[in-house]
Amino acid sequence: MTAIADNINDLSRQILAGNIGAGARAIRWLDDGDPRGADVLSLIFPHTGRAHLIGITGPPGAGKSSLTNTLITEQRRRGRRVGVIAIDPSSPFTGGAILGDRVRMAQHTVDPDVFIRSIGTRGQAGGLSRSSHDACLVLDAMNYDVIFVETVGVGQDEIDVVALAHTTLIIGVPGLGDEVQAVKAGLMEAGDIFVINKADRDGYDDTYRQFELMLHLRAESVSRNEIDKTASAWSPPLLRAVAKRAEGTVEIVDATDAHREYLQNSGHFVKRSSHREREQFICLLREAVVDEIMEGMDEDILNSILRREIDPYTAASHELARWRGNTTS
Amino acid sequence: MTAIADNINDLSRQILAGNIGAGARAIRWLDDGDPRGADVLSLIFPHTGRAHLIGITGPPGAGKSSLTNTLITEQRRRGRRVGVIAIDPSSPFTGGAILGDRVRMAQHTVDPDVFIRSIGTRGQAGGLSRSSHDACLVLDAMNYDVIFVETVGVGQDEIDVVALAHTTLIIGVPGLGDEVQAVKAGLMEAGDIFVINKADRDGYDDTYRQFELMLHLRAESVSRNEIDKTASAWSPPLLRAVAKRAEGTVEIVDATDAHREYLQNSGHFVKRSSHREREQFICLLREAVVDEIMEGMDEDILNSILRREIDPYTAASHELARWRGNTTS
Repeated sequence: MTAIADNINDLSRQILAGNIGAGARAIRWLDDGDPRGADVLSLIFPHTGRAHLIGITGPPGAGKSSLTNTLITEQRRRGRRVGVIAIDPSSPFTGGAILGDRVRMAQHTVDPDVFIRSIGTRGQAGGLSRSSHDACLVLDAMNYDVIFVETVGVGQDEIDVVALAHTTLIIGVPGLGDEVQAVKAGLMEAGDIFVINKADRDGYDDTYRQFELMLHLRAESVSRNEIDKTASAWSPPLLRAVAKRAEGTVEIVDATDAHREYLQNSGHFVKRSSHREREQFICLLREAVVDEIMEGMDEDILNSILRREIDPYTAASHELARWRGNTTS
Repeated sequence: MTAIADNINDLSRQILAGNIGAGARAIRWLDDGDPRGADVLSLIFPHTGRAHLIGITGPPGAGKSSLTNTLITEQRRRGRRVGVIAIDPSSPFTGGAILGDRVRMAQHTVDPDVFIRSIGTRGQAGGLSRSSHDACLVLDAMNYDVIFVETVGVGQDEIDVVALAHTTLIIGVPGLGDEVQAVKAGLMEAGDIFVINKADRDGYDDTYRQFELMLHLRAESVSRNEIDKTASAWSPPLLRAVAKRAEGTVEIVDATDAHREYLQNSGHFVKRSSHREREQFICLLREAVVDEIMEGMDEDILNSILRREIDPYTAASHELARWRGNTTS
């Protein structure tokens, strides 16, 4: 077994050769904001863009982890190397992550062709997409064919993450209240494939009809607006699954394969990747600028706000002007 | 009835006099990014900081709107003027808002001393806190005594919003699955008061014990870390409610009143307000800088990223340097 390199160039070569320890180290550096992380990323970046990123989301209790587990098994059966980014919501106050039921995926941890990483949120809006994006790039460079990004929860940040995948799976479940279905409606337009899990439960037929109706309304709104005729060429399938018995798994992987093929043939595969990189770039630029501004921040202006002598809008435009002045001199 | 002023000075005066049409117009301007909104805010800002902001959150299905409704009634009974900011999660793709069950609050819409505004998210991370913060300031200037900020959903963005309130209410409900309770754990540390709603339902005792345990663990972690001894002087109560029968309402309002008093006596009332203003200032500054950078953005650098010739990290630091160079010349 090769030792994991400390040196940027060697570590990058190890990542490109698929070394798991090297990949884990790079992800940790990126997560910690260690500048070596960005250096490694710049070396491996030209070798990324090949993996099929599949986002998986849905309300709590939908059985996303169990379903992901069966999808890994089926992807492995098709001979593909699989990466998984599992996102744990963290407390914004202590940064403590909830491990949830990642253990359900434990059977795959001995498989060298399956790589599972959990990522926390660090309590920063947008932090989730940055961390998961970085981890995706590292796994992509390690030559995983398929990368699942699984999120717990239904917040905006989680929607942003899965919406940046090539293929987005929305998981529903029978028997959740009306309000939950309503929240889920916010996810409807982000979905490429819909799955009702726990389909052996009471209420399946009702949930199926609800989803059908929502998909119908969505299709109508797309054709009425005619915003993106190419995108509407994909008609999102609605599938059933019972993850604990591995029912429906083959059909779901058939559907994600079909969607990848559709994206590749229509040129949307590269387009979605590009959109993701652009978003990441803007996010990084924003962070860098804010860090710089905060470093040189005049405590007086903060104190004036706190004494309500100046409002946040006026203060922000003053500070912007001040910063411009400083960079001029 | 006075006509709503178009003029900044007159409109600000109308807001300070509590004119509802004037307040609604200012909130709309701020939401739309109309510069007149910021102008109005700078005039009314010195008159804010008095209202008690109460954040209300919890998982979908917890009955937050019904509960808020009964809290409004009780606050009115105590002679207070009440503002409500109800946050609707929007689709990141069409911007369409889910109206949910705001209608349950409809009985209060004829009461001139209750002002309810719904706010969408515009699909931007952090956009939620900006919009709701602006609306809070306007309502504060309009002299509402209590402002409820109610969010649907359990995402990071929603936690950020309620965590910036003076008093944060976390609403639980019996009978949700383990995974939902796990997600909710991320909210535990943001809560000042905990309420189990729908307490007449099966599973109430189990849920009560779960909450008790989580609060116990939280108290232990606070005393172990001894991070903020003043903050730990408040021991968060765990209350029961059946909102549809208005049960538990008086106790909840007693608790929010006690928390306000605790904050005022300990100096934390002003401290929490200050923290909120500071966050808003940084958020606005970030937006302003990014807008400016995007305006002058070199399309070449974006294209290089899309061709994978340059990674997002390197591109961000190049662009930062370029912008500095531009502001120098």
